[in-house]
Amino acid sequence: MHTTAHSHPLSYTDWTLTETQFDPDQLHARETVFTIGNGYLGTRGSFEEGYPRALPATFIHGAYDDVPIVYTELANCPDWLPLVVIVNGDRFRLDQGECLSYERQLDLRRGILSRSVRWRSPSGKTLDLHFERFASLADEHVLGLRCQITPVDFSGLVEVQASINGYAENQGFNHWEGLDQGKTNRGVWLQVRTRSSRIELAMASGMKISGAETSLQVTSAPGYPTLTAAFWAAPDQTVTVENIVTVFTSREGVTPVEAAQAKLAELPTYTALRQAHEQAWSQAWQKSDIVIEGDSRAQLAVRYNLFQLLISAPRHDDRVSVPAKTLSGFGYRGHIFWDTEIFILPFFTFTRPALARNLLTYRYHTLSGARRKASHAGYRGAMYAWESANTGDEVTPRWSLPHDPYAEDVRIWCSDREIHISADVAYAAWYYWYMTGDDLWMRDYGAEIILDTAIFWGSRVEWNTKQERYEIRSVIGADEYHEYVNNNAFTNRMVQWHLEKAISLYDWLDSSFPDRFAELKQKLKLTSERRSRWQDIVTNLWIPYDPATGLIEQFEGFFELEDINLQDYEPRIRSMQAILGIESANKRQVLKQPDVLMLFYLMRQSQEFPYSLAALQQNWDYYAPRTDITYGSSLGPAIHAILAADLGKSSEAYKHFIQAAMVDLEDTRGHAADGSHGASAGGIWPAVILGCGGVKLYRKWPRGQSTAAFRVETLV
Amino acid sequence: MHTTAHSHPLSYTDWTLTETQFDPDQLHARETVFTIGNGYLGTRGSFEEGYPRALPATFIHGAYDDVPIVYTELANCPDWLPLVVIVNGDRFRLDQGECLSYERQLDLRRGILSRSVRWRSPSGKTLDLHFERFASLADEHVLGLRCQITPVDFSGLVEVQASINGYAENQGFNHWEGLDQGKTNRGVWLQVRTRSSRIELAMASGMKISGAETSLQVTSAPGYPTLTAAFWAAPDQTVTVENIVTVFTSREGVTPVEAAQAKLAELPTYTALRQAHEQAWSQAWQKSDIVIEGDSRAQLAVRYNLFQLLISAPRHDDRVSVPAKTLSGFGYRGHIFWDTEIFILPFFTFTRPALARNLLTYRYHTLSGARRKASHAGYRGAMYAWESANTGDEVTPRWSLPHDPYAEDVRIWCSDREIHISADVAYAAWYYWYMTGDDLWMRDYGAEIILDTAIFWGSRVEWNTKQERYEIRSVIGADEYHEYVNNNAFTNRMVQWHLEKAISLYDWLDSSFPDRFAELKQKLKLTSERRSRWQDIVTNLWIPYDPATGLIEQFEGFFELEDINLQDYEPRIRSMQAILGIESANKRQVLKQPDVLMLFYLMRQSQEFPYSLAALQQNWDYYAPRTDITYGSSLGPAIHAILAADLGKSSEAYKHFIQAAMVDLEDTRGHAADGSHGASAGGIWPAVILGCGGVKLYRKWPRGQSTAAFRVETLV
Repeated sequence: MHTTAHSHPLSYTDWTLTETQFDPDQLHARETVFTIGNGYLGTRGSFEEGYPRALPATFIHGAYDDVPIVYTELANCPDWLPLVVIVNGDRFRLDQGECLSYERQLDLRRGILSRSVRWRSPSGKTLDLHFERFASLADEHVLGLRCQITPVDFSGLVEVQASINGYAENQGFNHWEGLDQGKTNRGVWLQVRTRSSRIELAMASGMKISGAETSLQVTSAPGYPTLTAAFWAAPDQTVTVENIVTVFTSREGVTPVEAAQAKLAELPTYTALRQAHEQAWSQAWQKSDIVIEGDSRAQLAVRYNLFQLLISAPRHDDRVSVPAKTLSGFGYRGHIFWDTEIFILPFFTFTRPALARNLLTYRYHTLSGARRKASHAGYRGAMYAWESANTGDEVTPRWSLPHDPYAEDVRIWCSDREIHISADVAYAAWYYWYMTGDDLWMRDYGAEIILDTAIFWGSRVEWNTKQERYEIRSVIGADEYHEYVNNNAFTNRMVQWHLEKAISLYDWLDSSFPDRFAELKQKLKLTSERRSRWQDIVTNLWIPYDPATGLIEQFEGFFELEDINLQDYEPRIRSMQAILGIESANKRQVLKQPDVLMLFYLMRQSQEFPYSLAALQQNWDYYAPRTDITYGSSLGPAIHAILAADLGKSSEAYKHFIQAAMVDLEDTRGHAADGSHGASAGGIWPAVILGCGGVKLYRKWPRGQSTAAFRVETLV
Repeated sequence: MHTTAHSHPLSYTDWTLTETQFDPDQLHARETVFTIGNGYLGTRGSFEEGYPRALPATFIHGAYDDVPIVYTELANCPDWLPLVVIVNGDRFRLDQGECLSYERQLDLRRGILSRSVRWRSPSGKTLDLHFERFASLADEHVLGLRCQITPVDFSGLVEVQASINGYAENQGFNHWEGLDQGKTNRGVWLQVRTRSSRIELAMASGMKISGAETSLQVTSAPGYPTLTAAFWAAPDQTVTVENIVTVFTSREGVTPVEAAQAKLAELPTYTALRQAHEQAWSQAWQKSDIVIEGDSRAQLAVRYNLFQLLISAPRHDDRVSVPAKTLSGFGYRGHIFWDTEIFILPFFTFTRPALARNLLTYRYHTLSGARRKASHAGYRGAMYAWESANTGDEVTPRWSLPHDPYAEDVRIWCSDREIHISADVAYAAWYYWYMTGDDLWMRDYGAEIILDTAIFWGSRVEWNTKQERYEIRSVIGADEYHEYVNNNAFTNRMVQWHLEKAISLYDWLDSSFPDRFAELKQKLKLTSERRSRWQDIVTNLWIPYDPATGLIEQFEGFFELEDINLQDYEPRIRSMQAILGIESANKRQVLKQPDVLMLFYLMRQSQEFPYSLAALQQNWDYYAPRTDITYGSSLGPAIHAILAADLGKSSEAYKHFIQAAMVDLEDTRGHAADGSHGASAGGIWPAVILGCGGVKLYRKWPRGQSTAAFRVETLV
């Protein structure tokens, strides 16, 4: 499938990526790559005029709606892109007529997507079209779309139709029921509501045409309000169509229709809006940029990945978080995984702590869902969902149901067994605090997260009477190729670490904020007995580990599994699980992603057990060759890059860094169509700054102050 | 929910049902009731102008597409109804302005749905609107829609927009991807294709306006081609808008776009088309009508139910069959059950044998799916799907997945255990032959159905060594309140009967059509040993039965279940399963629908075992009071009506007949919104003709000749 990925590569400058040829085979992957956004919404890079089988999508944080099997998904919102240009009866579209020149460009510095096309219509009229769009970073409810039309070799009637398409769909499913639509003196509006979650959304759209005599008309099919204008165009005379769209949902505590109309009425010109937007991007980059000299591809790739993070992180909302595929595609249905806390968060913690705080506070607001999950599973405290959405309740599908009525239904065990998520969230909360010194956040939000998940662990560990040790059985570790294991080293050590920190936090809160401590003691039923039990678990929780060699066993019995030499399977373009099958991969020493090494990465920052260079070397030599780093999980390469750099393996570090950085730009795994790889993008920042760049950051962060940009002079 | 059902009852004449007040609470149920169709498609009675939360739908036989969990469903086709009337900027809609008078009427004799509304717009303009629509029975690819507009108290601009809505949806899912659309000199067209099954569909629409000066305009949003006309209207001057729509799919072996356009181009006037349509209905009623004198409600109800059958049965296609909810709703996803063969077929066998043949031949064309099901379950021969669609493969969902992530997933066992369907199909094939004498159909189609399902039974029965008898274990019988039973009397006797007939058929084919016999012997591996084994099963298959009393035990151990007195639960408005829960209903002597009594009904025609009046009386007295006839299965009442009539219980027979006849008209079970109850409608004909009417029909049917209408002078 992805064999075509390199057939029409993008070209790069330090700040722009450019597509110089349109290839229908890359349609969906490039829609992902050219996504724009502003932390409120993301819009895939689909064409304004449409294209057969295109997957246009606009996702708004928190706008989830019910769906079978996977419980809930981000609803694809009404599409604000449709802009149809009709020349002498021929509708501009790239699957008809002749495309004489083509260039699509994403300007990362300005956050602007543009496209220039010279097109000859089936009846032989040639025209230049220049499109441009942005999702304002200065005002997240504002979207701008411009089209400049210049006849090359004809004079004639040109018609332009700009619409809001209320029939947006999630793979066929339209989550929105139309409530109403209408016109204003500046344009049209549409009001819709999700079917089950009853989130109301309104968009209002205004159009302005300059360079020609015309008047606007409203022609509204139900659910498809459209502004139409027809004008006479002449060679070399450019007509400019500017479309401004406003969008609000009931999640913002407003009446969306009124808010969208009022906002549209008060807006300045398209040019002024774009200027404010560019100014906001300029400020954003001042805080978050990484300058790489002497490697344009790496430079652009790093900025591209940071851009994905910056357009995805909510700025004014702490009840949402960044989905695994950000807001750029349908993959994983907009669900939120550990990807956010463990992979995406460091960039924000270090460069935009206020945004990191938003993301973490989402976990505070979803504690009640985590408590429901724990309670339904028979445990105490808070057990975070493997996949989470609005409420924090578990939304991981339990079944993969085949379309073949005679095939077996496949049970998905992640929600039951991939329990390390609760320690991951606590880890992220702790490190945010550690790095920023944001004591008030820890007092008001973080402590409850860390302590109530610690209570969960207290009820989840099992005492092995024979061996006289605590154990954690029936889990899936970080490595998802092994679906049912006991005493996964990664999980057990993370839980141990979590309880260590919970004890410190317990004491810190007691001494620093006794009122809040008293409050939480009562709410969570915290007692000194509970604290003692945590200490007992910390001391006696078993981690499969050979102190003589420093080698950690991924889980109990891993070393007895059949060994594998991944080289024997090269060259390959599929994951080892796809090649071996689920059952067979379960029985081999093959990893989807770092597991013991993931633990080294997480303990690296504080140089805690088991991290040491010697132990890392020992475990790297064992696990790296057994990890399906190319086609396993996209979470792996950035971690391998950092650890390889620690071990002085610069060229290997660079190779893995590029694997991570290019996963979407070059669609190296063939999944870019589903949305950008958020965790991989998140791993780029630590890979460059903490790994290859060699920067070490300790707790010296100026509290409450924003950070400056990083400069990395030689990457390798 | 259905407590509002009687708040605005319909009124009846012998041939029409009329709704004189629009009640939004009954919106969906009445959309079902006012469905029209022609055996090719069905269109729910939704309003032309739309209504909030309306569920417009057009279903075409065989136009299935993939969907999760339930595998496949009839795709809701593009909607041909949208007709918007705008008066001085106000769009006619019943949820705004003032409805001064309202009457919706379905004329069963002519197959025409009409509606008269006097409406005052929010700005105070009053107008009369008269809508009329039909799906031509004379040419199944032609649909007619007319709107007559008469201003009452104003002169002004009126705009009319007639559209094809390509965004039709199945509970939010749009199965169609837009391929193309355009205009012709008579109107507009739309070309779409189902996402997975790749069925192409095209509709073409032409509009004609008389009574005013105007010209047509095309304003096409993508997927929503629209014809628009504006005209000046004056008081008491009627403007008539006539819209003709043609529709084709690739299932008909044509290029749909060309076929739809060509058909539209060649059509005569609306009036001529309607005349041909009415003529076709007149002929249809000549063959199938039942005249009931002295009971207008019963008269209309009987005709209404026959109408449902007549609009659902395919006329020119023997690869499709009538879904459980006909073509009138989303319930059961357009899947085909035993409802068709056992409940719906008799009406056609007796009055329209060519249509019965179409329905049965569907089971011949789906034999390969039935063979796949048998093979995957480890059996031989053909095992029919409990729910069937295009291929005959099993499409019963295996799971009911709750939306609550902590609730249990409920396994649905019908596809595994409700195996009597294979005997039911054989029964229907046999009786069609028996009643019509259609030897050639039996030779070419029916024999293979009956023999290959007999082979299945040969591999499905189990020999009980201890008891020295054949048994059939782990089944669900006709009564679905008991989900896991052994030796269900209904199933076992139907299998025994099936094998008896298979042996006769084996011998008949051998003597009458030796060539075909030789062919089938080879194809199905029929041998005289197999015939002997069938005979052995017939002799030794156990049926739980007390010869002394004639009382049959529904299944092994039924009499030991906890007994129940249904009177103790009255009054109630829910099924006993809903009241008791699945598990608890399993453990009681409570039936969802006739099971032993169903067997009496099926064996009644030929007066075979166990049918005798004495045995019927014995079993009626036991089972009728234990059957949830009001809120259990809608399949029950018609059967009880017939058997009660046999026993001379006329008033009870009439009561059950009315229960069956009114299930949709009066929405007595609260499910009419999901589509009309096809099996219940099917049961009306035998209930009147074979039951209450007292007619007995034996094998005296004139071969190949159509039948005359029935006249029932006194129903009770």
